[in-house]
Amino acid sequence: MLKVVVIGSGNVAQHLITVLGKSGSINLVQAYARNAAALTHLLPDEKITDNFATLAAADIYIISVTDDAIAEVSSLLPFSDRLVVHTSGSVALQQIDAKNRRGVFYPLQTFSKNKAVDFKQVPLCLESENETDYHTLQTLAKSVSDSVYNINSVQRQSLHVAAVFVSNFTNHMYNIGHDICEENNVPFDILKPLIKETADKVQILSPKQAQTGPAKRNDVTTMEKHLAFLKDEKIKTIYTLLSQSIQNNNE
Amino acid sequence: MLKVVVIGSGNVAQHLITVLGKSGSINLVQAYARNAAALTHLLPDEKITDNFATLAAADIYIISVTDDAIAEVSSLLPFSDRLVVHTSGSVALQQIDAKNRRGVFYPLQTFSKNKAVDFKQVPLCLESENETDYHTLQTLAKSVSDSVYNINSVQRQSLHVAAVFVSNFTNHMYNIGHDICEENNVPFDILKPLIKETADKVQILSPKQAQTGPAKRNDVTTMEKHLAFLKDEKIKTIYTLLSQSIQNNNE
Repeated sequence: MLKVVVIGSGNVAQHLITVLGKSGSINLVQAYARNAAALTHLLPDEKITDNFATLAAADIYIISVTDDAIAEVSSLLPFSDRLVVHTSGSVALQQIDAKNRRGVFYPLQTFSKNKAVDFKQVPLCLESENETDYHTLQTLAKSVSDSVYNINSVQRQSLHVAAVFVSNFTNHMYNIGHDICEENNVPFDILKPLIKETADKVQILSPKQAQTGPAKRNDVTTMEKHLAFLKDEKIKTIYTLLSQSIQNNNE
Repeated sequence: MLKVVVIGSGNVAQHLITVLGKSGSINLVQAYARNAAALTHLLPDEKITDNFATLAAADIYIISVTDDAIAEVSSLLPFSDRLVVHTSGSVALQQIDAKNRRGVFYPLQTFSKNKAVDFKQVPLCLESENETDYHTLQTLAKSVSDSVYNINSVQRQSLHVAAVFVSNFTNHMYNIGHDICEENNVPFDILKPLIKETADKVQILSPKQAQTGPAKRNDVTTMEKHLAFLKDEKIKTIYTLLSQSIQNNNE
């Protein structure tokens, strides 16, 4: 059975610890946190360490820390020629200290502390320096997810940028909608089925096929009404820019 | 049993005809289309007319045509003092010819020809000129949806603008993500669970609580990497503007 150590105590690390801890086919032997108390709700004390010198032997070490800390943490590991992977969408494999065999185990999902995620549905993007390590990573990945992809560093970077658009910027669109509702004493709840349906549509249709709205149909009257309604100059600028971008796609 | 006539043959009209036709508590007596053939797959011939002069007697007439045509269609109705409503998010109640009693029956959802919608989940925003008509509209609305709201014209306008952000602009974010994937030979499928989870999160958390990403955490390094990765100047402009807007919300 593959032995795994998770290094880190943030959102992604905690979700990984939870899902690996439950797995019948993976042995989560240990987790490292600078502050061990951050993990005591997930693991028994004997499986938590705050000292790199006491890291257990394992087949895979998963570094799940902030992007900026990956290089340093990897250089602090007191061993060499073991498989060490990070979980970041935007950090190159080469940022991991070359004394170990390097790889990437990037779960492409948004993780919140307050909301459980079905890990089986989370796409895992894998990368490694050699085929043997890839197979080890693949065994780990398939034990927790049904959706495993071989993705190189450039592709991973593109996914990370794309994810900002489809998730972070999308959520910001929800936030602007929320603020408009609040200013007009309308419950944001009215928009929730629309939000869900908009996301559901592109599970089946391409976003191009799914596009609707005044910009798509070049409905200038409605767009002018909307701009007259919006008072905040910054929100007006976003409305105009995104409407133009949709209209450019029509051409 | 309430008698209803639907006037129009577009997306919304067809979804309304379908759901009202199935209702056990509403009598869909007739539908009007300029081109009767557009509705023959939904209704028997004797229930379809292309002639205003032969409109049947009913308790409610639902005008579901393009925004620009609502005023004209309402003026062509060969009767007065009946309840006539439109289904538009952005047209004032007063656009309906004053010879009839006026109202609004606005389903806030995105309707595609190729995808069925569970009407029970569709929020219906109702408005009328008097209480009796409101109760009639409410009876109609509650027979097809579990989500019925009393919304005045200004509130409805705000919802219509908010819907552009949470649906049309959101779908455009999906489209940009799709293009980035395509350019880098990565399947768009990898992003679909993220799209779903992002929409699911704001069913429970507020968009402000749900916000994640480099702009939210003021991660300048990652934002610069993303801008260096993006080649299209227009997409770079959108990335910068939306990141700034998220950062303004942090303050």
